[in-house]
Amino acid sequence: MKLGIYGYGNLGRGVECAVQQNKDAELVGIFTRRDPSTVKTLTGVPVYSASDILAHKDEIDVMIICGGSATDLPEMTPALAEHFNVVDSFDTHANIPQHFANVDAAAQKSGHIAIISCGWDPGMFSINRVYMESILPDGESYTFWGRGVSQGHSDAVRRIPGVLDARQYTVPVQEAVEKVRNCEYPELTTRMKHTRECYVVAAEDADKAAIETAIKTMPNYFDEYDTTVTFITMEEMKAEHSALPHGGNVIRSGKTGLHSECTHTIEYSLKLDSNPEFTSSVLICAARAIDRLYKKGETGCRTMLDIPPALLSPLSPEELRAHSL
Amino acid sequence: MKLGIYGYGNLGRGVECAVQQNKDAELVGIFTRRDPSTVKTLTGVPVYSASDILAHKDEIDVMIICGGSATDLPEMTPALAEHFNVVDSFDTHANIPQHFANVDAAAQKSGHIAIISCGWDPGMFSINRVYMESILPDGESYTFWGRGVSQGHSDAVRRIPGVLDARQYTVPVQEAVEKVRNCEYPELTTRMKHTRECYVVAAEDADKAAIETAIKTMPNYFDEYDTTVTFITMEEMKAEHSALPHGGNVIRSGKTGLHSECTHTIEYSLKLDSNPEFTSSVLICAARAIDRLYKKGETGCRTMLDIPPALLSPLSPEELRAHSL
Repeated sequence: MKLGIYGYGNLGRGVECAVQQNKDAELVGIFTRRDPSTVKTLTGVPVYSASDILAHKDEIDVMIICGGSATDLPEMTPALAEHFNVVDSFDTHANIPQHFANVDAAAQKSGHIAIISCGWDPGMFSINRVYMESILPDGESYTFWGRGVSQGHSDAVRRIPGVLDARQYTVPVQEAVEKVRNCEYPELTTRMKHTRECYVVAAEDADKAAIETAIKTMPNYFDEYDTTVTFITMEEMKAEHSALPHGGNVIRSGKTGLHSECTHTIEYSLKLDSNPEFTSSVLICAARAIDRLYKKGETGCRTMLDIPPALLSPLSPEELRAHSL
Repeated sequence: MKLGIYGYGNLGRGVECAVQQNKDAELVGIFTRRDPSTVKTLTGVPVYSASDILAHKDEIDVMIICGGSATDLPEMTPALAEHFNVVDSFDTHANIPQHFANVDAAAQKSGHIAIISCGWDPGMFSINRVYMESILPDGESYTFWGRGVSQGHSDAVRRIPGVLDARQYTVPVQEAVEKVRNCEYPELTTRMKHTRECYVVAAEDADKAAIETAIKTMPNYFDEYDTTVTFITMEEMKAEHSALPHGGNVIRSGKTGLHSECTHTIEYSLKLDSNPEFTSSVLICAARAIDRLYKKGETGCRTMLDIPPALLSPLSPEELRAHSL
């Protein structure tokens, strides 16, 4: 399959790397809204201006859109679905139904196929929630995130006056995770599930106490959590906090039997050195699936919940039955 | 969906219980090769003779076949696929391709749909292996089973002269599991992955030392493992070893990035109080999926690798996108 990347940030670079690991994938080019001559790629793949994208329509089987969920993807994915098969990682959970409807309309009209909200949450975590809840209807599901960097929370801290740089780690409360694993079906408030750790580089003349208060009391982002703030130097930030690790756990406990005698626990866990590189690796699999579905004549929008696992694999159904089943 | 159960052992009883938890499922009857008047069900559902099964053809959307993989299912599933949509839990991994071909031929010919090898291994573990290996092509996968009762190994011990009853637990070696979780990519021999614990009730005049030797040196079953043998009374067996717990872990570590800088670990774990009740709960989901596919006009054989997660859920695609994605 011939792939294009639309948008070249952390996620776009991740897709560029992941293509190297997938022998059935070839990267045709990267499309950017910046001046292409200013974009230096990791592998030397050509960079084109986003405004020239239609000239490459026939060279690309699937376009992987690597934009942000807040403002980019709601516009980009439906617009590109008018001309390409597209994959995105739209992750604003509450707006998925509207985004799905917009992309579906565009793809149905143009006769293309799209898959939205690919990655790990939404994505692999969603898939696992659906499997778990289908198998154990009488139970409770829990999702924990971290330990990992939340870009949104890091950005929120950076916007505080006097903050030069910041990194926020979301950390699951191990005591809560253990209660869930032990089938105690705990009722967990927001505060009981996660803590937040902030590493902050402050300007020389900044009021550190004021910054710490501004973080800890910030509505929606921090006020419902136990938050720790640690001031560090710019050198420490670069040396110790330049990676983007993440991960988490989806856990469900449920009962079976005529009198609910038996308890079962299903857990899916991720420990990721690089959130964007793992997400990119999922995007490649999603591209493979919709490329296959398009070649079978399917159109419209999908999510990973609509994709049979076998379609994500480079192996044939026969190989999978013989070796992976 | 209207379900039938063919075969009424531990698995059949599990399906009977699981139907109670799934509001879209109704159990029409149980079909047995025994004299129906001798079979007492848990819920009072009717019991019919297997020889009368064709009289109930039009009342049943999906027949769940609860037979053994060694001799029952290779015959039963293709035979029943001539008249019904069928689900089975065929678990002899090496023979899956042949079983698939036989069932596919029967189902294609009769215009029905079948799904084989449903449960957790094969089943949920297979699904997870395929997801993991598709997302992280450059990595290693490991499967650990237990702590849980292996019926096959328990039966093997029971066949030794002087043994009145036996229960065998397969136990993963925690040190090996931790090495895998720590991304050490260990090379693990059979002995390094699992130990085997046998609880044995011996006849009064039996030679216990001879029994222990017979177990520990039994080819294929025990000779490649570190095995412990504990002699207990029949009362202890009934009090402490009458349940059928099981579980395990599928773990994959893999690398991404242009120079493989980043490592990721994906783990799927099950802790099951009752192996047959959990397997039964998966069978109901598989029945729901093939009932939906049949009503869309699909025929032939499938495995769980061919089934989109959404089809296993009682919720609609819209509900899943809004709440589970």
